[in-house]
Amino acid sequence: MGSVTEDELVAAIRRIAGSDLPRVVVGIGDDGAVVDPGGGSTVISTDMLVEGVHFEMRGISVRDLGYKALTVNVSDLAAMASSPRHALVSLGLPRDTQVAWAIELFGGMLEACAEHAMSLVGGDLSAAPQVVISVTVTGEVAPGRAVLRSGARPGDRLAVTGTLGAAAGGLALARSSSAPAAVSDWGRELLRAHSRPTARVGEAQTLAGAGAHAMIDISDGLSKDLWRICEASGVGARLDLAAVPVSPALRVAEAELSLDAMGLALFGGEDYELLVAIAEDDLHHAAGELKERFGVPVTDIGGFTAAGTGLTAEGLDGRPAPMEPRGWDHFEPRS
Amino acid sequence: MGSVTEDELVAAIRRIAGSDLPRVVVGIGDDGAVVDPGGGSTVISTDMLVEGVHFEMRGISVRDLGYKALTVNVSDLAAMASSPRHALVSLGLPRDTQVAWAIELFGGMLEACAEHAMSLVGGDLSAAPQVVISVTVTGEVAPGRAVLRSGARPGDRLAVTGTLGAAAGGLALARSSSAPAAVSDWGRELLRAHSRPTARVGEAQTLAGAGAHAMIDISDGLSKDLWRICEASGVGARLDLAAVPVSPALRVAEAELSLDAMGLALFGGEDYELLVAIAEDDLHHAAGELKERFGVPVTDIGGFTAAGTGLTAEGLDGRPAPMEPRGWDHFEPRS
Repeated sequence: MGSVTEDELVAAIRRIAGSDLPRVVVGIGDDGAVVDPGGGSTVISTDMLVEGVHFEMRGISVRDLGYKALTVNVSDLAAMASSPRHALVSLGLPRDTQVAWAIELFGGMLEACAEHAMSLVGGDLSAAPQVVISVTVTGEVAPGRAVLRSGARPGDRLAVTGTLGAAAGGLALARSSSAPAAVSDWGRELLRAHSRPTARVGEAQTLAGAGAHAMIDISDGLSKDLWRICEASGVGARLDLAAVPVSPALRVAEAELSLDAMGLALFGGEDYELLVAIAEDDLHHAAGELKERFGVPVTDIGGFTAAGTGLTAEGLDGRPAPMEPRGWDHFEPRS
Repeated sequence: MGSVTEDELVAAIRRIAGSDLPRVVVGIGDDGAVVDPGGGSTVISTDMLVEGVHFEMRGISVRDLGYKALTVNVSDLAAMASSPRHALVSLGLPRDTQVAWAIELFGGMLEACAEHAMSLVGGDLSAAPQVVISVTVTGEVAPGRAVLRSGARPGDRLAVTGTLGAAAGGLALARSSSAPAAVSDWGRELLRAHSRPTARVGEAQTLAGAGAHAMIDISDGLSKDLWRICEASGVGARLDLAAVPVSPALRVAEAELSLDAMGLALFGGEDYELLVAIAEDDLHHAAGELKERFGVPVTDIGGFTAAGTGLTAEGLDGRPAPMEPRGWDHFEPRS
């Protein structure tokens, strides 16, 4: 960090993070933050992003990196149907990191915090051989109202918000160095999906209110995260491939860049859309509300089946075949 | 991680972490943990340890590493006079890490959790080029009762728990590869101070109850952490060097290994003792209580002075000299 000490950098971050935050008794700069937990249960989630594993410095702007690091954590809060409250950020930085770079990273994080009315209340700064970003977030949910992975029941519909595959398409596009594609409308949409994901906070609360039995955010791919619901709930699932809402921009990219759009939609990950188990009537109701409030579609893409039936995908030919819960494993290189 | 997936490792950790934990609605394995925050304010703190920066694999056993990573976070909760409640652990691991190694690391963490009646409720696992351990802990404190860094007043006594310098001495000893020293009583004591620090949770609450105005745990060295209290409180301080309780084991090592015991006590760091600002009468009262309840000494090592007077150290000759707030900066290599 050149001539800047840890304490000086903390002071700079403290200035841009602001003080006098709602329900924050003590923010950045003491041994810990002190917050008023409010009336409900507290949801806590944490996620680590490592340079060279989860991101490459040349693949994303520093501001987007900060925004994304915060948002993927908020997405976990959303998937529990909780309201985001506080964030703490531990940062490992190479010794030659520019202070302006670190401040810009926090700028992106604070942008995401502001979107979700969250307060950045603390963290830790450390030297590291490469950039490591560890974010912890807290949320609030009324007691007993968190939506878990374990509540899916045989007979529930399987539904997903938004469209899938755009983030993985954006990553592929960023790596393809296709300049014409990058300035096309569909190219920009894919790149944005990769670098500026959306956490479906309001959508999740609407789905929870409509009676969702189980919910997860798709971080590691539809197939893998669906399998996590199945395992936690002790059920199987049947996926209707024809119904999977593949990103329209990705459909264009499929032709232009010869990508496998359906493959990216099923296994690509980082979409941060919600995957829910919900009764059929409740799904119709929730779909109307989500369309009206957020302009976000919810698509019925299959159903949950009895324990022991595993994961099957019904292809365009109408014939079911077993599906592997394949996708992003954090111990495998990001494809 | 060889043939083990992230989900399988999470399942293994979940088994050893236990379930049905007090006030934990949802523990490891969902998008986030759900906890009952209890009646008070919530204290949250987070700390990142990076291999090659904060520790070397050959310098500490994996179990001790886990124990220490958790304990240094608990020490931050202690320094706010809060009671430890929950822990989340984000772990970056090289791809060739053995599963048994990771389980042993969590074993050490759970040992520290058990000592403080904390529950390990969640976290994240990721690949990384070297081991990165990011721990987040929560504690509870009655509203308005957290002891901050900013409450020191001119005229307050400056006091410290326990003795200083042993952890830095242990680190020096571990690096010296002095086999005879390592098996001596004093050598073992120093090595233990380095690898198995103690978080002064009960002691901090006793000091808070006695009326401590400001408190910090000494992680980066007496001199530097004292300066942090001074800066946050807008006061100066005068340190009486003759009164600084240098670890007796370190005094032996000073002769045997030609270490600078006073230098390590002032600037070495990682002692995790408490540094407090407290009125003189309250200090006498607190010292008696700490001795009786915990067998831990509290030593008067100076006093806080008016704003603008800076940090001075009164040497053995009785003459005050300015003191640099020198110590461990996380952007400098650990000395």
